[in-house]
Amino acid sequence: MPPLSRSQPPIRLICLDADDTLWGHESYFQASYRRFVDLLAPFAGASRSEERLVEIENRNLHLYGYGVKGFTLSMLETALEIMGDALTASTTRAILEIGRDLMRHPIDLLEGVAEALGPLEQRGSLVMVTKGDLFHQESKLAASGLGDRFSGVEIVSEKTAETYRRIFARYGARPEEAVMAGNSLRSDILPALEAGAWAVHIPHEYEWAHERAETPAAQPRFGQLRSLSELPGWLDAKNSDANIRARG
Amino acid sequence: MPPLSRSQPPIRLICLDADDTLWGHESYFQASYRRFVDLLAPFAGASRSEERLVEIENRNLHLYGYGVKGFTLSMLETALEIMGDALTASTTRAILEIGRDLMRHPIDLLEGVAEALGPLEQRGSLVMVTKGDLFHQESKLAASGLGDRFSGVEIVSEKTAETYRRIFARYGARPEEAVMAGNSLRSDILPALEAGAWAVHIPHEYEWAHERAETPAAQPRFGQLRSLSELPGWLDAKNSDANIRARG
Repeated sequence: MPPLSRSQPPIRLICLDADDTLWGHESYFQASYRRFVDLLAPFAGASRSEERLVEIENRNLHLYGYGVKGFTLSMLETALEIMGDALTASTTRAILEIGRDLMRHPIDLLEGVAEALGPLEQRGSLVMVTKGDLFHQESKLAASGLGDRFSGVEIVSEKTAETYRRIFARYGARPEEAVMAGNSLRSDILPALEAGAWAVHIPHEYEWAHERAETPAAQPRFGQLRSLSELPGWLDAKNSDANIRARG
Repeated sequence: MPPLSRSQPPIRLICLDADDTLWGHESYFQASYRRFVDLLAPFAGASRSEERLVEIENRNLHLYGYGVKGFTLSMLETALEIMGDALTASTTRAILEIGRDLMRHPIDLLEGVAEALGPLEQRGSLVMVTKGDLFHQESKLAASGLGDRFSGVEIVSEKTAETYRRIFARYGARPEEAVMAGNSLRSDILPALEAGAWAVHIPHEYEWAHERAETPAAQPRFGQLRSLSELPGWLDAKNSDANIRARG
């Protein structure tokens, strides 16, 4: 083991986001959006339907939170708004089916995830930190087969700096001993940095409308990687001191 | 303080169920059932509508878990089954409204709860253990104003013996140092006893169809009380040894 720099304790708590970090997620939502706007095509153009759905989803966040069930209810509300009394039983049925398909979408691990988890487990405790629906996220974790890799699973309603501080404390780590890796700047990166932890952005091709934020390039605890498979090497570099790192 | 019996450490982790233990819940669900069967009255008798809804809710538990959003989706599915193509936009709208009202029902603390929490806090760490939808349960806790009384809040998808063991360990208590109090034999009492903890049943006038089970009267760690306000006294009795208790 290379010596550690005196000012920085090793990073030993590795928190990972789930949707679009471990497995695909937004692509399934996008497909659902397309099915939904197709259903409403006789009544509204695709951009109007989508715009209304996004606005109604946002308006309902305080009531439903995140997740597929609330999304399904928001699709129905949007259809009622756009179609009015022309909303038929068959459209309602089709919308429920879009939601049900989304609940059951396949759990496909993203590139690099399967290879990364072993090396990450050797470097620290793995904790999954994910937002959304408790029951659905647990179901997806079970379907992923990754359950045994994690020391803990934290399903939270919002990812704020306070959320991260509470989680780090629960696993006995100071913020500077923890890293959060995920695809969302807004949920995974900015609040983790605010809490005093390291944060590694692994962008995904899809980015949800609610999730956009600026890259904190000037932040010394921030990193950006192309794949989770690069995270073990990144940790090794951070856990070595600067001189050793230059040689590696 | 009276001396403690040698074989039994004091009970110092006090876990409390929320719905129908701290605040009313099932009465609001029952009102929603009534509104739902009224909506469907032109197509089916109340008992058939309710029977179909309960069956569809059960069938959907593996997909939706517990909570109001899944219940709303199950109401829609039941309406589609019973009304078929006669399901109109206005009925769909009314069902969404039933669900929305249920999400926003008032949080009315049950009798004895407000008085009990202070004395309970003096006797141990309070942890809320509740099943259901993460976002909605957090919203209800916030609305209750009780958030600061609890050392922890555990919102879980199922209450099994394993769930309770994990929670006790998380708060550093052995099962015999923990008590779970709640209105549901099936979720609060039987699995807590199975985990080796104490369990106090505080029956509520409503009991959900999924939740019925036999009272474990012969179990020495089991108690039954009329109100949460009796729990501090019950704990004092258990935390004293048998002789002292006889005097009190």
